[in-house]
Amino acid sequence: MLDFDFYSPTEFVFGKGRESECGRLVKKHGGSRVLIHYGGGSAVKSGLIDRVKASLTDSGLTFFELGGVKPNPRDTLVYKGIELAKSEGVDFILAVGGGSVIDSSKAIAVGALYDGDFWDHYCGKAQIQKALPVGTVLTIAAAGSEGSGNSVITKEEGMLKRGAGSDLIRPKFSVLDPELTQTLPAYQTACGATDIMAHVFERYFTNTTEVEITDRLCEAVLMTMVKETPRVIKDPNNYHARANIMWAGMVAHNNIVGVGRQQDWNSHGLEHELSGLYDVAHGAGLAVIMPAWMEYVHSHDVMRFCQMATRVFGCKMNFADPEATALEGIKAFRTFLHNIGMPINFTELGAKEEDIPKLIEKLGVGDGKRGGFVELDKAAVEAIYKIAAKATL
Amino acid sequence: MLDFDFYSPTEFVFGKGRESECGRLVKKHGGSRVLIHYGGGSAVKSGLIDRVKASLTDSGLTFFELGGVKPNPRDTLVYKGIELAKSEGVDFILAVGGGSVIDSSKAIAVGALYDGDFWDHYCGKAQIQKALPVGTVLTIAAAGSEGSGNSVITKEEGMLKRGAGSDLIRPKFSVLDPELTQTLPAYQTACGATDIMAHVFERYFTNTTEVEITDRLCEAVLMTMVKETPRVIKDPNNYHARANIMWAGMVAHNNIVGVGRQQDWNSHGLEHELSGLYDVAHGAGLAVIMPAWMEYVHSHDVMRFCQMATRVFGCKMNFADPEATALEGIKAFRTFLHNIGMPINFTELGAKEEDIPKLIEKLGVGDGKRGGFVELDKAAVEAIYKIAAKATL
Repeated sequence: MLDFDFYSPTEFVFGKGRESECGRLVKKHGGSRVLIHYGGGSAVKSGLIDRVKASLTDSGLTFFELGGVKPNPRDTLVYKGIELAKSEGVDFILAVGGGSVIDSSKAIAVGALYDGDFWDHYCGKAQIQKALPVGTVLTIAAAGSEGSGNSVITKEEGMLKRGAGSDLIRPKFSVLDPELTQTLPAYQTACGATDIMAHVFERYFTNTTEVEITDRLCEAVLMTMVKETPRVIKDPNNYHARANIMWAGMVAHNNIVGVGRQQDWNSHGLEHELSGLYDVAHGAGLAVIMPAWMEYVHSHDVMRFCQMATRVFGCKMNFADPEATALEGIKAFRTFLHNIGMPINFTELGAKEEDIPKLIEKLGVGDGKRGGFVELDKAAVEAIYKIAAKATL
Repeated sequence: MLDFDFYSPTEFVFGKGRESECGRLVKKHGGSRVLIHYGGGSAVKSGLIDRVKASLTDSGLTFFELGGVKPNPRDTLVYKGIELAKSEGVDFILAVGGGSVIDSSKAIAVGALYDGDFWDHYCGKAQIQKALPVGTVLTIAAAGSEGSGNSVITKEEGMLKRGAGSDLIRPKFSVLDPELTQTLPAYQTACGATDIMAHVFERYFTNTTEVEITDRLCEAVLMTMVKETPRVIKDPNNYHARANIMWAGMVAHNNIVGVGRQQDWNSHGLEHELSGLYDVAHGAGLAVIMPAWMEYVHSHDVMRFCQMATRVFGCKMNFADPEATALEGIKAFRTFLHNIGMPINFTELGAKEEDIPKLIEKLGVGDGKRGGFVELDKAAVEAIYKIAAKATL
């Protein structure tokens, strides 16, 4: 096990109707002039935004609004939010939505207290030194941004998708009401589930040995997703399956299951170029990339893939041919994704094989290598995209 | 799943030699006049206290010392600590030791800012409203107090063991250096491991349904303990096994594996009277009580015990006789405890069957019932103590 720091100071408030506590929570965490940040129409239409506003009003708080966050949230809206926050003296950002809204809120929180361009923190020019406090009301179990110190923003010019991270942008509180996720279409629910599993796999595939506790915790989250996801796809109103997935989504990404071990994140890297170029859902892109990445790297540590296959997907170990078990596990994952309605290849995703050179170019791997479970050079990246392009069950 | 709040704002700093960062951490969390609180001679003899002092000195901090904490920490020393904290204007308590030292530190932190008797918070007369900040340098993986909002203190007069809890006494930071635990005798190591497993079982046995995520997380910690504990008993210097156990101990008790579900805690209640009366190690008492409690309650939910037996201890499910599997699982747990050197009955613990009426009297169950997985009246408590008294493999 490697040395590590772990700090997850978010106050989680979990259960039905608990968005009514927003006002109390903002106040408790020092906010008085609040920017409510949200996405498209559903949070408005469902009455959620009105309930949140009523809660803030009841607590005597002043608020401003900025809607319009899109999936793969854009820098252009972040700039608007920063301007609004500065001009109105906002001291708290309340994100009402999913990962995109939360990530956009974190970017505004950073930019509002920074003299230069907030993008400096996403392109690697600057480290986050301070940020306004952020709270969240989560409406989709997926990104884990409600408990993480990460944010991913897309620069509209060139559709560049880049991330920033710091404990300073971990939310002060997050309201997790599983009921809010019951109105999600099956496709978005499945995209979220895929993202949650991907967050665990990015941590699970490691070269660090002697990590029994985090291995087992990773598998706990994965087994939960394997059990609960088909239940919500079949019955979107299954509150308890939604609740299990919602907590799993937080646990998957606040890093309690990933500490003390090298992590990978190449599937996320390769996927970001897909959702950047085609503006597809991040989870859908991951469904296409991650099993392809697994197939490409499995021979690096066949036993780790056998462990996944047997413990997570219930495959029987083939002692005469361990590689067969490894591949069976990867196939079980891809089949699971297909069964919950996810695309498994470029065609189903709406991507084009002929764009692979463009994807590689945007990824910027050049003549170098991307570190991780297996180091990937340009040829490796190309091979993974090619597997992903043509994958079948 | 039930509604819940979860808040674990402790900064964990994990790895070899990281106690040298104490000064930086105390300063970061606002301390300037520090009370270093510790136990017996080992932290002094090993040079740990000197290293901690050097780190505080390097950061320009003023400090005071109070040693002498015993297992099952006493109110008498807490009063001394409160007096010292008040007279010296202490603004930070640094606990260097195990659960007893940390629990004693939390009690001092509460008492230092309270006008009345700190015991009010332990006997149920008062809720914790404020507390000095506490930091910890952990030297034994066991109590989980390094990540919890709990504290258990023994009132010397009558040896009454009682607990208090609040998010306000969760440590600001905890240094977890597995190497510090390598000098522990095997018996203490095994007591700690038993305590960790007990913390999980108290959460695992529940009447709340639809808790897949926390079930799986509980099992993850338990499986880790089943694998890693025999390794450290065999080789006390196995750093990585120590590291896995140390993180498991935190995860077991900061409640991330226990949220959203009814919990039990009757084994802890029954054990507290044992360690209170005989001053035996808490973990040793749990090794005697917990399997006895399991045997007494197993018929309440045979399938849950089958789940434990098969998933945690690898028993084969006996479909013709599920109860046999349940009992096999409990036996596997008791055998595991015996194999790591724990007592499994009153004689091995140093307790006396004829004291059972006294234990029941002190527990104060009266004509009422103790809530939990199975409600326990006086007769039930007596039956469990009797099973514990005579247990064999």
